[in-house]
Amino acid sequence: MEMGIVVGRVTATRKDENLVGTKLLITQSIGLDGTPLDSQPIITVDTVGAGIGERVIFVKGSMASRAVINKDSPVDAAIVGIIDNLECEKFKG
Amino acid sequence: MEMGIVVGRVTATRKDENLVGTKLLITQSIGLDGTPLDSQPIITVDTVGAGIGERVIFVKGSMASRAVINKDSPVDAAIVGIIDNLECEKFKG
Amino acid sequence: MEMGIVVGRVTATRKDENLVGTKLLITQSIGLDGTPLDSQPIITVDTVGAGIGERVIFVKGSMASRAVINKDSPVDAAIVGIIDNLECEKFKG
Amino acid sequence: MEMGIVVGRVTATRKDENLVGTKLLITQSIGLDGTPLDSQPIITVDTVGAGIGERVIFVKGSMASRAVINKDSPVDAAIVGIIDNLECEKFKG
Amino acid sequence: MEMGIVVGRVTATRKDENLVGTKLLITQSIGLDGTPLDSQPIITVDTVGAGIGERVIFVKGSMASRAVINKDSPVDAAIVGIIDNLECEKFKG
Repeated sequence: MEMGIVVGRVTATRKDENLVGTKLLITQSIGLDGTPLDSQPIITVDTVGAGIGERVIFVKGSMASRAVINKDSPVDAAIVGIIDNLECEKFKG
Repeated sequence: MEMGIVVGRVTATRKDENLVGTKLLITQSIGLDGTPLDSQPIITVDTVGAGIGERVIFVKGSMASRAVINKDSPVDAAIVGIIDNLECEKFKG
Repeated sequence: MEMGIVVGRVTATRKDENLVGTKLLITQSIGLDGTPLDSQPIITVDTVGAGIGERVIFVKGSMASRAVINKDSPVDAAIVGIIDNLECEKFKG
Repeated sequence: MEMGIVVGRVTATRKDENLVGTKLLITQSIGLDGTPLDSQPIITVDTVGAGIGERVIFVKGSMASRAVINKDSPVDAAIVGIIDNLECEKFKG
Repeated sequence: MEMGIVVGRVTATRKDENLVGTKLLITQSIGLDGTPLDSQPIITVDTVGAGIGERVIFVKGSMASRAVINKDSPVDAAIVGIIDNLECEKFKG
């Protein structure tokens, strides 16, 4: 999984019928210090009630579909947790 | 999923029989402001009636095949929505 | 899927028994103008009779195995089409 | 699989119910000499009792879920071993 | 699949029980001329009796598990062939 911050929301009227009713949030990966990285933001399906500005855990690939109720959804990224706390140490080998 | 813009179309007479009848669109990833990124464009199967110049949501990997009618298609990327609106905020940690 | 050009061929006598009889072609990703990119070339299983120098469509990941006859083959990339024509437009947001 | 070093831990009260009880460790990829790389750290599910500072083997993608007891967990990265020893040679073609 | 060179070996006493008995080799991707690339080395399960210094074909992702005897192994990369010969041409579009 990755750490990310929810930065936006996307709406689509015309879409796959198995995506109807899903909340599509734009998530940006963050580093160990919580700051957004330069990587490309992705669209994640929210499954835990996340909001813009929240730091989240998201899953990518086919496993993301496990978090979604509709088991036919074509989903490759899903938010599966809201980060409470992130503690880390720096190592230099 | 990713945000992209449809930039072209590819045709192939000689192809896997399970791809016959699929519309293959070339899609370029876009950033939060809607502008195309430098990343490599990919070939996506259109499942929602997208056209060149439209901003779309596309799925990658094995989950893309869920959006395609022929369940034997060797498909690893599919357009699953047309973006109506994209709202986002900038965060700096 | 990605657009690529077949640039070579690899042979292996000692290999997984489910790869026996497969034609392994080295494919380099290409950009919208058809020129090879700097990305790492990969080994693709040919399923459409592609030859060196041809521009092709290839699938990556587990979906590649759908294009292969032997359903037990450990295959993560396959050529599934020969590109006839590629038309695209340039967008700048 | 990849080689990594466990650099932190993340906690999330609000999360997918199939993640309840999993230990989520932040892992940074390491190079052949054991030093952390610049790549983005990821969240891995610990399945072998790893601790901060330990060098580990981790699996990514859908196969990571094989290492987890709850077979419905939306998991795309898991620590599956603690590295005892890593021996390597340098090659220049 | 990718072309690589086996550069090392990793041992782990504490590991997932479905990895017991597997030979874990460190593999570095190589380019068309056979020289190692700068990309991150990965841990691959050997299924063909490869040794250090040999040039190999390896599979990544869930398909790698097809090459492994234990079908419950959490494996995302496997060596599936020893390269005998690699012939390629240079193209410039």
